[in-house]
Formats: sequence, structure tokens, C-alpha cells
Amino acid sequence: MELLKQRIRKDGVVLPGNILKVGGFLNHQIDIGLLNEIGSEFAHRFIGSKVTRIMTVEASGIAIACITAQYFNVPVVFAKKSKTSNLSGDPYVTSVKSYTHNTTYDIVVARDYLQPTDSVLLIDDFLANGCALEGLAALVEQSGATLTGAGIVIEKGFQRGGEGLRARGVRVESLAIIESMDPSTGIVFRD
Amino acid sequence: MELLKQRIRKDGVVLPGNILKVGGFLNHQIDIGLLNEIGSEFAHRFIGSKVTRIMTVEASGIAIACITAQYFNVPVVFAKKSKTSNLSGDPYVTSVKSYTHNTTYDIVVARDYLQPTDSVLLIDDFLANGCALEGLAALVEQSGATLTGAGIVIEKGFQRGGEGLRARGVRVESLAIIESMDPSTGIVFRD
Repeated sequence: MELLKQRIRKDGVVLPGNILKVGGFLNHQIDIGLLNEIGSEFAHRFIGSKVTRIMTVEASGIAIACITAQYFNVPVVFAKKSKTSNLSGDPYVTSVKSYTHNTTYDIVVARDYLQPTDSVLLIDDFLANGCALEGLAALVEQSGATLTGAGIVIEKGFQRGGEGLRARGVRVESLAIIESMDPSTGIVFRD
Repeated sequence: MELLKQRIRKDGVVLPGNILKVGGFLNHQIDIGLLNEIGSEFAHRFIGSKVTRIMTVEASGIAIACITAQYFNVPVVFAKKSKTSNLSGDPYVTSVKSYTHNTTYDIVVARDYLQPTDSVLLIDDFLANGCALEGLAALVEQSGATLTGAGIVIEKGFQRGGEGLRARGVRVESLAIIESMDPSTGIVFRD
């Protein structure tokens, strides 16, 4: 998605340790016009696929999931990052490792909001090691719903998450795939 | 907002301890159509007011803020709940007490995303004790921006947050104000 790549080149900041800051438009301050272009592109890529629900994980996936859901006319459900007193019943739960924060946390979805009859599109801002997306896929599997695929805004193609998911048959559509990046020489996108 | 009140009556669950669960449509599973009605109503109520930025706090405010921002044609900025390695510089920060979780946490906004020239509309799902909203207002004040007001989906009118904010001149527009609620007798809305 050329518009997105241009924006990443213009406003993204590459830091040592393979960190790409896109807080200026994607996950701290949010450019809603750009998000609409992103949502429209996901709709285009998944045209003809059955999607009854869009799923993401808090917090930065929520904005993208909600704007995208307008193009599919389906509800959003977002997984919460730990059990809260407000989640009654027996929710779907799985563990996710975070390399960024060097920790492990649970993600949780209430049983009512994922049904065996659902076809679920996962949406997230980043795909790197794939831990968050694998966690979401595990929740879909627990529920018996069908995993239609995953729509990712920025994939770090030099990390292994996308490869692993595609190898086991998950359809992953990433709007910008970074082949390599470096604070001094900048970003190289995969064609 | 009658549509919202009907939905709360239909799908909201009142639990002991003044807990109202609206995870079926507002803050776990999200009805995007309803959110569009909510965004449109906020735009109607703040018509003629200057708004250059919509601000909320992760996680459940993000969905409402982003859909609402489409009616104002402005960017969203969401405060993060703790300092992360990705927030460089010298961010605006303040402490927020959570009565729900009986804890205190920091909320943080990078300096770049709030300017003294901004007119900020705060958006959140709930207003109860007002701690989160007071925290957001404190960040706006630190930045030197103007606080245009606050748009709240559900206010617990029997708690003191709304009263306190209005008493010191903050314009608070709540789409549904709960006068009282009880697991056995249900919800009474303020007229």
C-alpha cells in the first residue's frame, strides 16, 4: 500500500534494536483519514471472504479494527490483556510472550463474543515475532470459530512471525512489509 | 440519547457493587453502528465548538474516540497507561487512581501530540469517580492546550465525578446518565 509506505518513510522513526516508532499516525496519535484508507484496503484484499467478526487485542489494534469494521459491517471484539473483575463466566484465555516488554501476559475474550459459527478476521498494527497474532488465533481455535485470515498494517519481514503463520496456512495480508531497517540508512520495503 | 438508553436497558447487566457490564456492545464486543450514532450525537452537541484534537485513554475509550473523530475530522491521541520504551523525550504524565482495580497508575502522552494551540475534546466510555477524566484534563493543562469539553457515553450520576468536573467549569456532555441502578430493580436514567 503505497500511501502507507510513504507515510512510514515520512513520519516513522527507526531506533536501534529494530524499533519502528509510528506513534505520530498509527498507535499513539491516530490519523483517522489514513486509517480509513487502511480499512478500505483490507476490505479490498478480503473481498469475497466470509467475515462475521473482526478481532484484535488491546490497545493499539482497537483503532484499526474499529475503522476497518465499517467496511465489513461487522462487530469488533478485542481481547483484553488480563482477567478483570468484569469478565465473568469461563472466558477463552491464552498466554502471549512480549519480546518488547520481556514479559508474558494472558489475553482473554468472553465466551459470548466468539461463536463456533463465526468467521473471524484478525487485525493488528504490527506483526513481528507473531506472538500476539498466534495468541488471537489460539482464542479463535478454542471457540471453534473459523479463522478467515489476518490483516496487518506493518509486518517486520525480517522477523519470523509472518513466515510461521503463513507456513501453517493462515492467510496474512500485510499492507507494508519491511525487509530491513536501520537508524542510519532507513527502511527497505519488500516489493 | 434514547437509542443508547434502550440498548443499555436491553443488553447492560447490573451487578452488585455498582458495576454495569456493557461488554456486549461498548467495551469488549463493539457495535460499530451504535458507535457511529454516538459519534454523530457528540458532533451535534459540540457543534460550533472548536475541536482540533480528540483525546482519550487506553483501552476502551479508543474505539469511541476514533469513530467520533470521523465526525470532527480531527486526529485522535490516546494516553498510554504507563511509560513504555517507545515513549522518548519528556512526555506529559499524571497519576490516576482506579477504584475498580484499587490501584494507581500513570497516564502518559508524548509532548508532540498535544500543542498549546490545540482545542481538545475528551472522550471516554464511563464517567464515575472522574479520576480518568481528571487525569486527561491534567495532561491537557500541562500542555497549555484548551479543554473544549468532555463527551461521555455513560455517566454514573450517583457518583461524584461529573459534579466535580462541571463545578469547575468543564463542559461535560453525557449521552446516558444513570440516576440509580440495582441488580434486582434495574436502571433509572436521569431525564
